[in-house]
Order: sequence, then structure tokens, then C-alpha cells
Amino acid sequence: MDQEIHEECGVMGIYDTKGNDVAASIYYGLFALQHRGQESSGIAVSDTRGPVGSYSVHKGMGLVNEVFDAENLGKLKGNIGVGHVRYSTTGASIPQNVQPLVLNYVKGTLMLAHNGNLVNARELRTQMEYTGGIFHTTIDTEVIAYLIARERLTSPTAEEAVKEAMKKLKGAYSLVIASPRKLIGARDPFGFRPLVIGKREDAYVLASETCALDAIDAEFVRDVLPGEIVMLDENGIQSDREMCKENAARCIFEYIYFARPDSYVDGISVYKSRITAGRILAQMHPVDADIVVGVPDSGNVAAMGFAEESGVPYGVAFIKNSYVGRTFIKPGQQARESSVKIKLNVLKEVVRGKRVVMVDDSIVRGTTSERIVRMLKNAGAKEVHVRISSPPFLYPCYYGTDVPSCDQLIAYNNTVNEICSMIGADSLGYLDGKRLQELTEGDCNYCDACFSGNYPVAPPEGDIRGSYEK
Amino acid sequence: MDQEIHEECGVMGIYDTKGNDVAASIYYGLFALQHRGQESSGIAVSDTRGPVGSYSVHKGMGLVNEVFDAENLGKLKGNIGVGHVRYSTTGASIPQNVQPLVLNYVKGTLMLAHNGNLVNARELRTQMEYTGGIFHTTIDTEVIAYLIARERLTSPTAEEAVKEAMKKLKGAYSLVIASPRKLIGARDPFGFRPLVIGKREDAYVLASETCALDAIDAEFVRDVLPGEIVMLDENGIQSDREMCKENAARCIFEYIYFARPDSYVDGISVYKSRITAGRILAQMHPVDADIVVGVPDSGNVAAMGFAEESGVPYGVAFIKNSYVGRTFIKPGQQARESSVKIKLNVLKEVVRGKRVVMVDDSIVRGTTSERIVRMLKNAGAKEVHVRISSPPFLYPCYYGTDVPSCDQLIAYNNTVNEICSMIGADSLGYLDGKRLQELTEGDCNYCDACFSGNYPVAPPEGDIRGSYEK
Amino acid sequence: MDQEIHEECGVMGIYDTKGNDVAASIYYGLFALQHRGQESSGIAVSDTRGPVGSYSVHKGMGLVNEVFDAENLGKLKGNIGVGHVRYSTTGASIPQNVQPLVLNYVKGTLMLAHNGNLVNARELRTQMEYTGGIFHTTIDTEVIAYLIARERLTSPTAEEAVKEAMKKLKGAYSLVIASPRKLIGARDPFGFRPLVIGKREDAYVLASETCALDAIDAEFVRDVLPGEIVMLDENGIQSDREMCKENAARCIFEYIYFARPDSYVDGISVYKSRITAGRILAQMHPVDADIVVGVPDSGNVAAMGFAEESGVPYGVAFIKNSYVGRTFIKPGQQARESSVKIKLNVLKEVVRGKRVVMVDDSIVRGTTSERIVRMLKNAGAKEVHVRISSPPFLYPCYYGTDVPSCDQLIAYNNTVNEICSMIGADSLGYLDGKRLQELTEGDCNYCDACFSGNYPVAPPEGDIRGSYEK
Amino acid sequence: MDQEIHEECGVMGIYDTKGNDVAASIYYGLFALQHRGQESSGIAVSDTRGPVGSYSVHKGMGLVNEVFDAENLGKLKGNIGVGHVRYSTTGASIPQNVQPLVLNYVKGTLMLAHNGNLVNARELRTQMEYTGGIFHTTIDTEVIAYLIARERLTSPTAEEAVKEAMKKLKGAYSLVIASPRKLIGARDPFGFRPLVIGKREDAYVLASETCALDAIDAEFVRDVLPGEIVMLDENGIQSDREMCKENAARCIFEYIYFARPDSYVDGISVYKSRITAGRILAQMHPVDADIVVGVPDSGNVAAMGFAEESGVPYGVAFIKNSYVGRTFIKPGQQARESSVKIKLNVLKEVVRGKRVVMVDDSIVRGTTSERIVRMLKNAGAKEVHVRISSPPFLYPCYYGTDVPSCDQLIAYNNTVNEICSMIGADSLGYLDGKRLQELTEGDCNYCDACFSGNYPVAPPEGDIRGSYEK
Repeated sequence: MDQEIHEECGVMGIYDTKGNDVAASIYYGLFALQHRGQESSGIAVSDTRGPVGSYSVHKGMGLVNEVFDAENLGKLKGNIGVGHVRYSTTGASIPQNVQPLVLNYVKGTLMLAHNGNLVNARELRTQMEYTGGIFHTTIDTEVIAYLIARERLTSPTAEEAVKEAMKKLKGAYSLVIASPRKLIGARDPFGFRPLVIGKREDAYVLASETCALDAIDAEFVRDVLPGEIVMLDENGIQSDREMCKENAARCIFEYIYFARPDSYVDGISVYKSRITAGRILAQMHPVDADIVVGVPDSGNVAAMGFAEESGVPYGVAFIKNSYVGRTFIKPGQQARESSVKIKLNVLKEVVRGKRVVMVDDSIVRGTTSERIVRMLKNAGAKEVHVRISSPPFLYPCYYGTDVPSCDQLIAYNNTVNEICSMIGADSLGYLDGKRLQELTEGDCNYCDACFSGNYPVAPPEGDIRGSYEK
Repeated sequence: MDQEIHEECGVMGIYDTKGNDVAASIYYGLFALQHRGQESSGIAVSDTRGPVGSYSVHKGMGLVNEVFDAENLGKLKGNIGVGHVRYSTTGASIPQNVQPLVLNYVKGTLMLAHNGNLVNARELRTQMEYTGGIFHTTIDTEVIAYLIARERLTSPTAEEAVKEAMKKLKGAYSLVIASPRKLIGARDPFGFRPLVIGKREDAYVLASETCALDAIDAEFVRDVLPGEIVMLDENGIQSDREMCKENAARCIFEYIYFARPDSYVDGISVYKSRITAGRILAQMHPVDADIVVGVPDSGNVAAMGFAEESGVPYGVAFIKNSYVGRTFIKPGQQARESSVKIKLNVLKEVVRGKRVVMVDDSIVRGTTSERIVRMLKNAGAKEVHVRISSPPFLYPCYYGTDVPSCDQLIAYNNTVNEICSMIGADSLGYLDGKRLQELTEGDCNYCDACFSGNYPVAPPEGDIRGSYEK
Repeated sequence: MDQEIHEECGVMGIYDTKGNDVAASIYYGLFALQHRGQESSGIAVSDTRGPVGSYSVHKGMGLVNEVFDAENLGKLKGNIGVGHVRYSTTGASIPQNVQPLVLNYVKGTLMLAHNGNLVNARELRTQMEYTGGIFHTTIDTEVIAYLIARERLTSPTAEEAVKEAMKKLKGAYSLVIASPRKLIGARDPFGFRPLVIGKREDAYVLASETCALDAIDAEFVRDVLPGEIVMLDENGIQSDREMCKENAARCIFEYIYFARPDSYVDGISVYKSRITAGRILAQMHPVDADIVVGVPDSGNVAAMGFAEESGVPYGVAFIKNSYVGRTFIKPGQQARESSVKIKLNVLKEVVRGKRVVMVDDSIVRGTTSERIVRMLKNAGAKEVHVRISSPPFLYPCYYGTDVPSCDQLIAYNNTVNEICSMIGADSLGYLDGKRLQELTEGDCNYCDACFSGNYPVAPPEGDIRGSYEK
Repeated sequence: MDQEIHEECGVMGIYDTKGNDVAASIYYGLFALQHRGQESSGIAVSDTRGPVGSYSVHKGMGLVNEVFDAENLGKLKGNIGVGHVRYSTTGASIPQNVQPLVLNYVKGTLMLAHNGNLVNARELRTQMEYTGGIFHTTIDTEVIAYLIARERLTSPTAEEAVKEAMKKLKGAYSLVIASPRKLIGARDPFGFRPLVIGKREDAYVLASETCALDAIDAEFVRDVLPGEIVMLDENGIQSDREMCKENAARCIFEYIYFARPDSYVDGISVYKSRITAGRILAQMHPVDADIVVGVPDSGNVAAMGFAEESGVPYGVAFIKNSYVGRTFIKPGQQARESSVKIKLNVLKEVVRGKRVVMVDDSIVRGTTSERIVRMLKNAGAKEVHVRISSPPFLYPCYYGTDVPSCDQLIAYNNTVNEICSMIGADSLGYLDGKRLQELTEGDCNYCDACFSGNYPVAPPEGDIRGSYEK
């Protein structure tokens, strides 16, 4: 809904070592990653067999199917390329900030797509300005590009330059880089954001999620490890793990909400994680009820898990209007015509006279939850028991999502009972933070800072969001 | 998917008797009706207290959120208006055919939105041309407008003119008409297409489905009866039922597929109809299986009905990519990148190693079904049993949908066994046509011509689709 | 300038009897006629050898090079077609009013392009509405189309129908009509607006001016006579002169301002007419001066005539900025940045210290003239003597131009001396209305109603402009 | 025509020291400079009293009136800004190359507009890449920006940094730079391209030509000297002339063709220069003739000079169609419909039976001249004597225009007699290179390398045009 938490970006890269054009496949892949960013889209390609420094790029504000058409896609000729979908968390939502970034540096063209958020972008940028750097954008991706370009002067290879740059970067980044003759993937040592390797015949693929591999019929090879740099070319996959650390800190909220349920993140099925979350909720917050329903689309799988565990039948209570897009305008001032109402409608037949368990992934400010509970009650639900498949949001995120500052988080200033009353529910249960590790099958290398305040990397002094514009 | 059957149109009309602007509410309502037509959208308004003959209109090719923005919607000032979303079945998909039609006639401005398809449009049009008529469009709505304008010369009121016109019209039509000072709704005597009356404070509403009433918080008053003309103004609702017949023939496929499950069509819950369809399938085509899944979105409810009746657990096996819109292009020639693949992905965790019952609403040509069955098998499904919540399509529709001619219908030339083998399923079961009446709770006043060939109104000689263009 | 008088329209039609596509040539021709209308453009074509009733049309708001591009022009396939450029005098400037009109009537497709203005459009329209007519537009072209369609029912041929329609039409009209199998041109009996016939190999051409023939390398055949109907097809040119009258009334202002100087209107060189006008001014309003300059572009030729007759040297004093187009916006409120200033600049070197004769075609409200005189004086001109190559505007035009109502005409309420003083000139001289016939080489069959008030056709009661919208 | 020689760019900058918005005035000024570049346009502004680093920019492909509308212009708030119109000579015609460039560097925002062309851009760029520079564009303006940013680290002021940068730049550049708190203008030591200072109340203005000052009612203060840096702020105009040289080399072709005739370039009236050129032609290549005509628009003034000197009467022989713009397409393959024909038409009345002197500014490949001569003869001219107001083009230009390489210049491989015959003229005379200095009133500080091969600055090895893209 309008108060959703957003992932910053989705990234994609393909290198077809036999020379076939890759733009169409990147385009398909970006569709599969569109849930990770809806503000802008872009694809850049070049030809590994052509002259160094030539490339084609098309990018713009909007969804993949708004930015690309047969004409502009047809002009993107080349067998190596990167693509990007973006929701802006740092850097204003302006045309010059749209990714991928395409730059010329000492070795030719450098095309970058970045998912994540640096916590030391401001310091790095200032350092570069004090050594003569100029910046066309306000996104930290340009800082990364600069670092790589400078390190490349003294590094024997592009991947070495990436590694040297990584030694200076702090924060979250999953990078896909097309250097003139190879495709490079890199993931920060904590592995905040996902990145996977795929293969299709003679083409290597990097993508944020496995669902993008499915979309282009590529097979999943493996995840890029936290801290790993992979270099893909006609010699296959090469790996540099010097930057890998013992303890990673993968974003747990990818499992709960960001990633698509048909994706596997770091080897774990997102679908299964959500089933597990629902089961835990049923164990910890059981309730006598007639039906379990999910708030579409992200609450559905956890609702099924709750149903399986509790024996309360699963049902579908909401019709979601998928035509209400990014450009939906609100012409009327009449409160009754809320955007929640336009996007969701209740199936009265399903809930009338029933005790309903309503499962959602999170509560941010609480207003959307309040409206949905009210819709259920207006439709005749006798009771509405809200179950949230994550712990309460208590702290902002600095690693590439827009979980906001504390004062905007309902859970920061209110007890669970207070929230329950504020949203009009008959009961409210959150997932217990202690059981989060069950979502990752016992692996504790995850980041839950937004719930626990345990920041793996120290946040910048002051929130960095949009600070370059000021 | 790409071989879906399409409804022709969705219509909407509002008259706010206290003088408030209605365009914003029509805009919201059209969002709720968008599933009935995605090719073009339009809104026309006028002011019942202003000079006769003045109006504002905006319409164009595309979805509601592509055609309307804050600027053009802001210019639509007026307290009476009609809106339309369209998928073209008759009349080419060209700008001049976009509805609503706005005309000036002897009494001022006439604004029409039409859902349905006449079977005698060609004859009527020829008659009018032979009495000096000129036509700007190739849609039968213009024929209806002409008839009304001509009848208005000798009829004391607009609604009388509509009635006289109806005496000449044959086929399917649900009409919403804004005459300078009142809103008129009319439904053909067979009631092929739905039309409902709503009310919100001092405003009267007409819409194709009740979900549009929900979207604007209007309350449902009642369905317009087959053959009824309703006239809505500051004096309330007036009705003329002279054209009503004993036996109506409402489109049964509205319940199975076209209408949104949260709508009530002629008093019957679409959701419940589909649950019933699923239950019947489970009774007639039972199968030993591990999971029942629906093909999104239309197969989901029937799948739940099947699960309820059979006891086989319900599951969600597909992730649908809702970003793949109307303007999706297919840049690649590689067969592997089918549009089915881009739109749907299978949750491998759900189906792997399982015997799957896959419920869909219909099979047209069979190619989409074949691809989906294959996707399930590739994801590890051990068996795939296809259950279709309608009887086999055997005949084309002439009443406002695009069920095509016989030679394009897989069931026309193949037995059920043959189809089962063609789509690669382990078993295949259709809904028995004899039990269709259970979907309407025993009311037999429905049209099932596409299954039975029993046409309530004789089809035109030769298929009328697009014939004006030729 | 911003107070220019505008011609209503330019029309074009081509029929290639050997079957070649004509859209490209119409496109070129419309460029040559663009000075006659800059608000909208359109081309409609069909194929005389294809099925009756099929056609292609593209039209839109804007200049020819804004409305057409390679893609939409490439889709206009057909060997007969009409084109139109428009400046709206009647009918609001809205999309549905853009010409050419394309209609289907009893005999197939009727494509019309119209230049002119009926004085009885309102009465005719009302009559048609009272016999069941419906109107999609507010332009009188639709009235003409209706009349033709109705007459066609009882007329043996399309050209007969046109003639019968003409018997009912009052006012100004030059029509180009593509009936399914022939191209028809017609001109009102007074011949207010021009229309010429051309030929290029096997193609016949109709156009508002000969400059459009030059643009496509067609040769000039002859003018369509006032009152004449011509029918062009593979049998050549056929003519019906039954409606011709003894005394025509061609618009004299075509020679003075509307037509391009490289055109010949009714056999007379526009260039020579303007030279003559300048000569007459020099004879009647001589002045001791150092240089004669024209206000671009329309005053230039008359200025040369003045120079030739008077012996005062001709010079160019103004640079016109041809990039300031239709969509020029005035973001600043500062009076100093007048649009006159943006469009014109003075060559100081030319006028500094000189006594200047400034020749322009007309004065409407006087404000533009005042600004230009001031610009000359600011640039150092010692004296500015204004000479106007037409008599004073005293009456509005009802025949297809926008000479406005009396209260907006500076000459209606002021003497020449008063105007001279209002515009800051040192002297002012108008062309004497008695000598207008010298512009047409002695032929008195012209309309000078805007100067004399002698209306060949009685104006409608009340100004008809835009009255359908009210 | 389609073979015109193009100037690279026009630049504009305003700083209103009282805080008024400047975007509207820059917009007006760019209209006046549009003849210097029609491919792209842009305006960037910031507020000297606001936070350092904030700015607004809008730019795009197309003419000023295509790129700007009321909405985007209204968003450009700020009292200091720069504007640019561009025709690409170096750097591909792609969106990222559109100027002005807006960068953030150590001192905040740097906004640059550049007219000219460096000959050592490639070396400088390589040097910067070898010290860690990254490039977003392929235009040399980015190289200049980088140099300034780097020099700023060790320079006390922005203007000092500009001076240090200039010590490394070779070639042609007229720069307008908005540093956070001041407006800076700089011109290369040879002064290849013009740059003037203007003032309007409390606002300082920099512009390529004085016609832009006229357009906004600013008064001309003086030219920026070759090699001079001017710094404009609330303290007035400050100047640094350390880089000035004894001998400048202003582009002589600015007088002959590029600049608008109402401009003064380095103190000399362009209008008078062209009159002089025409007079010299009449002296050196006299001919018995009936009329002298100019090829519009650039040949007109020289034609008047020829007429004055020779006594042969001046006339206007061509009508230029100013609606044929940048986006004119050529849909037809028929040779007869040449674009010359669409843009120009001959006034037959003027040339029929006459011996015509046709004056043009230059001949590049000769095909356009050949077509125009043919048009005159087809219109009845008895003789056509071509006079060119510049010497023959023999060498390419490296200083900001697109005079092409030798093999594309008709004069490089053909004698004057041969050219005369190739273009079908009865005689042909060029301006003698020895008399060029008369155009600048005796000042020999001009560059005539395209005629003489005397390059004031050594050209790069190999033509630099577009080389970054390769």
C-alpha cells in the first residue's frame, strides 16, 4: 500500500560469450525484478568484440514497460550489458540519477548497476572532491565508480580494482559491472543484499534474485558469497574471496517481504521462510478463528503457514486491483475514496460473520492496517486478529531500504496493546525476534537491525538519505 | 494469458444531484472495472445546471492510469457523466472508436457508454445510411446513438426515445446515457451483460459491476432488470419495464470468468459461483492428488472450491508478474522466452514431487494450457490433473465477448482425451454443461451459447466482427 | 505578430490514377500551405482499387511537422486522399474538430477538407437535428458532409449530390472531397477562397494555392471557377458550372496578405498585386525619405513596390526570428520582454539617422504597429512613415478569416490622424479602397467587405464564431 | 539547406544580483541564439542566496520551443544561470551530451556552457583518465570542467582556477560558468568564438551575440577580449587579462555566415561586413545583369551590397518556407521532391526572362547550389551568375564548426571553372581571400584557416570529431 517499505533496487547483468545480443534477456529479467524498484529502469550494453569505449544505453523514469519499447530496445546492440530497476532511497528521484551508470574511464567503458546503500558515501565523496573529482549525480553509485576508476590505475585488473575499492566502501552493495571485456559481480562482506549467478548456454548471468533467472530460462549456478568478487568471461567463473568475512549479515527482511516467494536467497526458499513465519505465528499467537487470510500479496504465504500450523482454514478475503499503478492520482479530496479502497476490496462472502485471522508482513505507521481491519469489519467480520510475520520495526535501515526514522514507526512509541487498539484489531501478534533464525533454517548470519538496533556497520552520523541534494 | 477470452467493455455513470463534480468518482470506478477492457478509456461530463450542449471529454488508447493524469482529469468539470473502458470486439482498435461517444443532437449533448454487441448493427447502419446518416466510427454504439436521436424527434422524453430505439436493437447492450438533465440506464431484454444501480448520498450511480460501487463507497441499490430502462435524476429512480421479457439470458461466463469475484451479478455472488464450480468439478472429476492449485487469477476461487469439496489441500503454485502489462513487447525470437514464462513462474517448493490438480476457467486454443502444464512438470510435479471450471467452448459468441469462431476452438475438433494429450496433462475434466445452473443458484435464465450453441438471439449472417472496416 | 489576421484553412487533395501512394505528396503540399493554418493538420487516404469503406487517417493539433512523423505517415497507404491545415475561426480548437473529416455514408467513405465559413451553418444544423442528425464536431464541415450524404440518396452521382448541397449552403467554401472512386473540388459561387487544379503525370491535384503545386512539381492546370464543381478521375477533368454566377467576390485580402507571394490566385500573381499596392501607396502617400522597409514577411513585397515607384531605396530593417513558433510561451511578466521583441529585431546600421518608410499589410488593433514604430525609433530612425497596403479594417469578416468585430478594430473608432498618433508614426497612409481593383488587374469581382461593409452574402444574425460551443 | 555549415553552439548566462529569477530571460536569449545550434537546448539555474550545491536544470534534444514549456520553465527558480543551444560537432548527438553541464565539485555546483572545440581534448582526457578521472559524456566541455575542478583545489578563487585550466586548454572556447556565487566568462586567447557582456538593471549578462542582449532589452557593455576572463557579481565586472595575446584569430566566418546580421561581433556590425562582402564581389566579379538576388537568408545582405555597388537592382527571388523544421522527414523516394524544393520556391515573376546574379555565402559540396541554379533557370531566368561572399572552402575547421574534411569540399578538387560548370551557372565568382580584412575594417586578427590552411593552433593528429564514440 502507500506506506510500504521499499527495497532500493534490482540489478541484472549478462555476458553472452558467443556474441549474441543480451538486451532482450535483460529486459525480461528486469520484469521479474520490478518488485524491487518501480521508479526508474535502464539497460546499457556494449560489444566485447567491438571497439573499447562504445556502448548503447537507454534509461528513464518509470516501470520497465513504460521506459522500453520495441524501437529503443531494438537499438541496444551488444553481447554484454547490465540492467537496473530503482526505487530511490538515497539520491533524489531525478533523471540524472537513473541507473545503470555508464562511464568512460582509463580502460574504456564501465557500466555499473548497484543495489544497496553506502554509509560512508558522504565522506568518500568529499575526499574525492578534495582531490579534483566532479559529480554528475547524487547517488553513491557514482562514488563507487570513481573509486574503481582510481584504483584501476594501480591495479592489474578490473576485478583487483573492485577489490581495492571495496576496502574503502562501508555499507551495503551488490554490484554488477560490465568492464569492456568481462562481467563482474561483487557483494559487500556482510552480504546485505542478494546476488546470484546463472548460466544459459554460453551466457553468464548475474541477478538480484533467482526469479530473474527463471524468467530467461537460465539455470541457477550459485549465490555470490558475501564479500566475494566474481569475474565472468569466456574462461568461466573466477572468484576472489579475500574480502569474505566470517560472519555475514544478510537482510532478513528479504525473506519476509522484499524478495519474490519463487526466489531462493542464499540457498533458502523465500516461500518456505514465509510458511515458517506463519507457522511460528500460529504457535506463539494462536487464536480461535474461522478463517486465515493474507493481506495481498506479501501476506499470503505466511497466512498459509499459519493455516497449516493452526488448522484454521485458509481463505482469500481480498481482491487486489493490479491496474492501480505508480501513476495513480488522487483527484478527490473525499476521505472516503482512500487509495487503500481503490487497491483492495473485500470478498464479503468470505468474511461475513466470521472470526478472521489477518496476516500481514509488517506494520509501519499503522494507518494502512487500520483501514484494512476496518474494511474487514465493514464487510461483516465478527473478529479480526492481526498477525504480523516480522518483529516490530523499531529502528531505521541504512543498508538500502527505506525503513524510516524512529519517530515514524508506530512500534517505537507504542506498546503492542496500544497498536492493537489503534488499528482496531481484536488481537495482535508479532513474530518474536528470537525465532527469526528459523526463517533462515538456523543460519544466524542475518541482519535484523530494523528490529533489534544491532547495526553490523555503524550508521552515518545523521541520516544520509537525500543529503546531497540539500 | 495471451489467449484469454475478453469481455468487451465496462461502463459507469454518475449524476450528482447536488452539483458536485463526478469525474474523480468515475475515474475511481473505471479502475475497478479495468478488468473488463484494457484497450481504451474515457470519461465525459457535463453540468446539468449549465447551458445545454456544453461538455468536457477526455479519452484515449490505453489503461485508465495511462489515459488520465491530474491535468486532464482536473479539466473535467460537471455533475453528470459517463465513463468507459473497452476491449474492442467490434470496430477496429482506432482512436475514433474510443468511448464514451459524445454527440450533439436535437436536445443538446448525448453522452453514451455501451457494453455489448448488436447482432443487427450492420442492417441498422445500412438503413440509416440509406436515409442520409453519416458515421464517424465503426462501432455499433454510434448506431444506437443515431436511433435514439431519431426516435427523440417523436418521443416526449429521452427515456421514451431509448425505449423506441430498443425495439429496433437486437443483441446485447447495457447502456449508460447522460442526456442533458438526467442519467439513463438500459439493458437489453435478455440481460446478456450486467448493469447495477448504486447510490451515494445525493448521487446516483450506474455501473457494470458492484465492485465499482465499492470502490467509490456507493451502496448497491439493485440490478437493472433485463429489458428495463431506469431514469435517474433529482426525483429518484424511475423505471420502465415494458421491454422486459419472461425469460432472460444472462451471460453465464460473467460468473465463471469475466466479473470480479467481489462483484454480485444479478444478485448472485460471483465468488460463490466459482466455489460451486470448483465443488462440482471435484464431484464429477475426482482424483487422488496432493495439492489443488489455481491458474491465476481467475482459476483461484474454483480451485478453493475443489479443495473444499475434495479435501485435497489448496495451495498457491504460481507467482504472477503483475507488471507485465498491455504494452509488453517481445523483442526476442527465442521460443524459450515465452510471454507465459514472463507472466507466470512456478513455486517449485509447492509442487515438487506432488500430484497436482490445476484448475483454470477455460481452454481456448490449448497452447497456453500446454505451456502451464509443462511449467509445472519442469518444476517437479509428478502428475498434473487439469480441471476446467466451464464446459468446452464449441461456438463463437456474438453478444459482446471474443470467444472466436469454431475453427480456433480446440474443443470443436478434438475429444476431451485428445485435448488432454495435447496439453500434456495426466487427466482432464470439464464442468458438465448440465450443472451450469448450480452456478446461478438454480436460475436458468442464462446464456450458454458458447458451450451449447443455443443462441437466444439469432447470430448475424457471417461474423460481424470488424466487418465495417472491410 | 500576435495580432495577425488569420486565414482559416488550407486544403489539398490528390488522386493518382495509376495507383501510387499519395500521402507523401499531400504532406509536402501541406508544408507549402502551412501559412494558411497552424493549429492542426491532417491527412486521410484510401485506395480506389481497394474495398469501399476502408481508409487511413492521421490528424492532430499542431504544425505539419509536429503531427506527422515517418511512422504515422508510412501507415497512410492509398492512391487518393485529402489533407488539411487549420486555424480555427468557427468551432473550438479541440481534437474532434480537426480536419479532414472522414465519414462513412451510403456510398462508402467520404473524406472532406474545407476552407471557408458558412453563414447559415447554424440554421442548417438545426434543421438536421430536427430530422434526426447527430453531430460529433462543432465545425460547419460536418454540416456540409451531412447535406452531401443526404442529397446522395436521390442524386445519381456524388458530384450531383455536392451540387444539390451547394444549393443550400450560404457563405464561403472551397471543398476538396474524396469519394470512394473520384476526387471532387467545389468552390462557392462567390469564390471567396481560392482553389486550383494541378496535374503531375497520372495524378490530379487540388490545392488552395499554386505554391502547393510547385512543392510537388505538379503543373498548374487552371483555377476552379467560383461556383464550379470539378470531378477528377481516370477520365480526366469534368466540370459542372451550373452554380456559377455572373459576379464573383473573391477575397481581395488573399492578394494583400493571406496567399504566398509565389502563388497565383485566379490567374493573378500575388507578388505583382503586392508590388502594385506598394506603387499605389507611393503615388498617393509620397514622402521624402531615405529608405523603405517592409515589416516581415508580408510587408516586404509592397515595400519593394513603394521603392520602385518612389525611387527611395529599398532596405531590410528587421531580422525575423523564425524559431519563435506556435508554442512560444511567455514566462516573464516583465513588459519589456514583449513577444514582438522576441520575434523581430531591428538592424540599427540600416535605420540609424534615417527617415524610414515602413510598409505593412494592415493594422488591426494598433498595438503591434506601435511597438514596431517604437523599435525603429529606439534604433535611431529619425522619422517613421507608416504605409499600409490595404484600406482600414472597418467590418468583421464572415467568410473564413478572423477579422474581428468592429469594437476591436482601431480604424472603426479613430481617424487616420488619430491612429497615426496612437502608433507614434510621423505620417500614416492607407491604400485607397477605390484603387483595390488595380491589384486584380481591373477585375472587380472581389470581396472587400472588411473594408467597405459591402457583404456579398448577408452575415448571420449575431456573430457565428464559436457559437456551437455556447 | 541540408548541406549548410553549422556553428557548434550558442551560450548565455545571467546573474541577477537583486535576486530575481533569470530562467525566463535565458529562455528568451536562447531563442535569439537558436541559429547557432538546433539539436539540443538547456537551461540550468541556482540561487546565489540559497544553499551551495542546489540547482535546477532542464535540457533535452530539440529546439528551444520543443524542449521548454510553461511547466518545466516554471520550475527553474534561481537568480543565476546558464543556457545553451547546440549543434554537435564533437560528441555524438545523444542525451547525455546535452549542455549546460551541471556538476558538483569541491566548492558546490558548477554549471558550464561552452561554445567551441578543443584540439587537445583527447590528450587532456587521457591524462585525466590516467589520474582516475571518469567521464559521463563525450564532449570536451566535461574535460574543461574537470580541469577547473582540479585547479580549484589549489587556486584561491574560481576565476583563478579557470585561468589555470586555460593554460592547459588548446583550441577554441567561449565559456559561460556559474560558480555558486558568481558568473564567469572566458574566451580562448585567439578569440575564435565571440562572447559579449551585457547589463540590464541589476543583472549581468554573457552571451554569444549581441542579438541575445537585444532580445531581453539588456544593453551591450563590451566584448569579452580574446584570452580574457571576466567575473561578474554584485561588485560589478572584474577582469583578468593575463592570458590575452598580442594577435587574436577571430573566426571570419562568423561575419560571413554564422552570426545574425543584427549582431555586432567584436565591435563590428555583421550587417556591414556582409554589405562590404557584396560590394567587393561586385568590384571583382562584375556582370551585366538585370537583378541581384540573395539565397535566403544568409545571402540577402551581401546581395544588397552587390546591388549597391553595381547598380544592378536588388530583388527577392525566393520564398523560404520557415515551417520546414529540424524534424522534416522525406517520405517519398521520388527525386523530384527534393528538400530544397520544399524549403525554397522561386518567384517566377521576379526572374522570368532576366539575367540574375545569385549571391550565396558559401559552397560546400555544390549539390545545393546546383539545385538552386536549376530552380532559377526552370523559372525562366535567362542567365544565372553565382557570386559567393567567401573564398572557396579548402580546409576543415577544428575550432567549433563543421566545415568538413577536404575530400568533401568541392573546391578542394575542382577549379572555379569546373565548379561553375558543375552547378550549371553562367559565371561564378568567389570573394578573394586577400580582401577578407575589409570585412573586419582592416583588423587582421582573424582566422581564415578554412580558406587558407593557416591554422593558428595546430590541429589534432587525425580529425577529432566524434572520436570518443569510436
